Amino acid sequence: MQVEDVTIGELAKHIPTPFYCYSAAAIASNYQRYSDAFAGLDSLICYAVKANSNQAILATLAQLGAGADTVSEGEIRRALAAGIKAEKIVFAGVGKSEQEIRYALSQGILQFNVESEPELERISALAVQMNTTARISIRVNPDVEAKTHAKITTGLAENKFGINIDLAPQLYIKAASLPGIEVTGVDVHIGSQLINLEPFAAAFAKVAELVSSLKAQGITIKIIDIGGGLGINYGEHSDEPDIRTYAEHAKQHLGHLGCKIIVEPGRSMVGNAGVLVSKVEYVKTGQERTFLILDAAMNDLIRPSMYDAYHHIATVEQKPNQAVYDIVGPVCETGDTFAKSRALGECEQGDLVAIMGAGAYGAVMASHYNSRLNAPEVLVSGKQYSIIRERISFDTLLAMDTLPAWL
Amino acid sequence: MQVEDVTIGELAKHIPTPFYCYSAAAIASNYQRYSDAFAGLDSLICYAVKANSNQAILATLAQLGAGADTVSEGEIRRALAAGIKAEKIVFAGVGKSEQEIRYALSQGILQFNVESEPELERISALAVQMNTTARISIRVNPDVEAKTHAKITTGLAENKFGINIDLAPQLYIKAASLPGIEVTGVDVHIGSQLINLEPFAAAFAKVAELVSSLKAQGITIKIIDIGGGLGINYGEHSDEPDIRTYAEHAKQHLGHLGCKIIVEPGRSMVGNAGVLVSKVEYVKTGQERTFLILDAAMNDLIRPSMYDAYHHIATVEQKPNQAVYDIVGPVCETGDTFAKSRALGECEQGDLVAIMGAGAYGAVMASHYNSRLNAPEVLVSGKQYSIIRERISFDTLLAMDTLPAWL
Repeated sequence: MQVEDVTIGELAKHIPTPFYCYSAAAIASNYQRYSDAFAGLDSLICYAVKANSNQAILATLAQLGAGADTVSEGEIRRALAAGIKAEKIVFAGVGKSEQEIRYALSQGILQFNVESEPELERISALAVQMNTTARISIRVNPDVEAKTHAKITTGLAENKFGINIDLAPQLYIKAASLPGIEVTGVDVHIGSQLINLEPFAAAFAKVAELVSSLKAQGITIKIIDIGGGLGINYGEHSDEPDIRTYAEHAKQHLGHLGCKIIVEPGRSMVGNAGVLVSKVEYVKTGQERTFLILDAAMNDLIRPSMYDAYHHIATVEQKPNQAVYDIVGPVCETGDTFAKSRALGECEQGDLVAIMGAGAYGAVMASHYNSRLNAPEVLVSGKQYSIIRERISFDTLLAMDTLPAWL
Repeated sequence: MQVEDVTIGELAKHIPTPFYCYSAAAIASNYQRYSDAFAGLDSLICYAVKANSNQAILATLAQLGAGADTVSEGEIRRALAAGIKAEKIVFAGVGKSEQEIRYALSQGILQFNVESEPELERISALAVQMNTTARISIRVNPDVEAKTHAKITTGLAENKFGINIDLAPQLYIKAASLPGIEVTGVDVHIGSQLINLEPFAAAFAKVAELVSSLKAQGITIKIIDIGGGLGINYGEHSDEPDIRTYAEHAKQHLGHLGCKIIVEPGRSMVGNAGVLVSKVEYVKTGQERTFLILDAAMNDLIRPSMYDAYHHIATVEQKPNQAVYDIVGPVCETGDTFAKSRALGECEQGDLVAIMGAGAYGAVMASHYNSRLNAPEVLVSGKQYSIIRERISFDTLLAMDTLPAWL
């Protein structure tokens, strides 16, 4: 198994497993697909940093021209550090703190995607205090069922996100009247890992209506942020939504409005560009099943445990025979299971396996649970590779704690 | 609201929210309860480090006389650093690596709890290599339904853990014949957060049978490790299992065997000794519900999102009126929800709330998801408090990444 021109088996001789390995070319190819698909529109591709915020990934995307969709001060700092200009950074999220808003204002970011009326008031007050102007969009909630996992659907009326689209006009009128606020956009985001594109079309149509009705009320929208959420094929089904069809929906419903379109791909930019490489610690034969016990665990990749997510898993070397395994990690929870009853090349102790589609929501959700050291991250580009995040040492891990004077 | 003699409101003036706050006295009281309940038996209380591995917590328990139940090299290192002697440390877990086994052997720990035949062989080979002897127990799987959350039940036949109890005798015979191995114990652990004690009684009875039958075969068991798993009352029900009844079950079924009993409480030692203190960033009134948006999130405490876990939540200051809220964090996932339709004192922006029962499986499972800084941990003892883990800075967070030379 190769990542570009680098053999995973070779990498594993130098870097102890488990580790993440990403392909710069795959990321560039995904970026190009978005860029081509949206070519007919005045558009900006703002990568959703939350999917994978390693600064080497961000710098790769920055060089391609990407902006950033961020949800925290930490993410804005990462984007800036990686060379993404403030005028290409949007800031979303339901819980923006005063400190975060001040920081974003001080950097002059492109736009705040506002999620509630009290947030709008806070941004206005802080912009006035800082003698500056905040460009804002309001995130509207189109009440569209995204048909994805309940934990990552976000466009329903009862979600914590955004403002019900029917109530948006009155909040826009308020926003237009507030000091320190410049209304620039509308934002919509209905969920993550969407395979079916129809919910997008439905949401875009509702946004178009809103933009027209706001215009009639004297509020001009310059930017439509259509969010992200395009799913990828993790290997369980053969469907993968077509980015061109997605862009067509945007053109059809929004193209006539003369707005800049911001699109915020995260998972579909990096998800299939990464694998988690792990070693078989034990093959454990039970009465009813055989367990492949890996050295990777739920603390490295939480998606299977957290979202019942499917990831394709393959042996790094081709195997002559197949076997069926429960593929699990060493963490002391039954939930630390990557796959159940999965067919795979027959393995023995020491074999390498790759958990595919691990480029998004992998390393960023990792923890040190069970006092496990982090899986390092490696970026490959052609024949080159570079460790873009090191595994920390036990000394560093233990030094995070401080004993009280009384102990 | 107070933690011992320290007011949470006062703490929050010095330590920005969110932060964890633990009570040393509550931990000591929980330890005492175990110590009293097991007084009639030759017993060792090995705290399950995975529940909360902060070295200040471990040092608190070490001073009380506790040993440690560990599941990784990192946890063994923490326990030793906190002053727990190697002869009070047991090492469990299904995926022990060669490096981990070597480290544990080099420290001379009390016992390896072996989970599979290939692990037994690996330990034997390494002990021989290192010219030492490994004391081992075999973790047996009594096929008892623990009646807890599926992700944390561990005693069923189809789990990745342990050896089916019916097959254990033949593995013991093999173990007794292997070089570098001294058979010392039997280990059983059926799950976590158990409220009903009957499954424990059933498991202990099966273990007693095994010990007797092993004796008949010339294999003397000196240590019975009865695991942990006692649940706590998170506030949704009024039952909390009685540690004395639990110890009675152990005495009744195992007391006559003349063995040392190891008990491994984790959650029931620290769970109710900690709270997660958070601030209300926004009160967001929707059409159907009102959201309390906190500055704590699923990256700080993942249990509600991961296990649908209930945590009691209270305002830090008493409030004259009640209201019903969806209590959520700022992370961009619908799953970042602490509680739905929860009655609470009526809040406004800036109010403090405490998420109770957050001493176990809280900080240890935390991540930097959404590039959020970690919640610091504070230990209170009487009138004193001490920050036992600091919040890192953005500079430290960003310095974890390294750019490749080509970027």
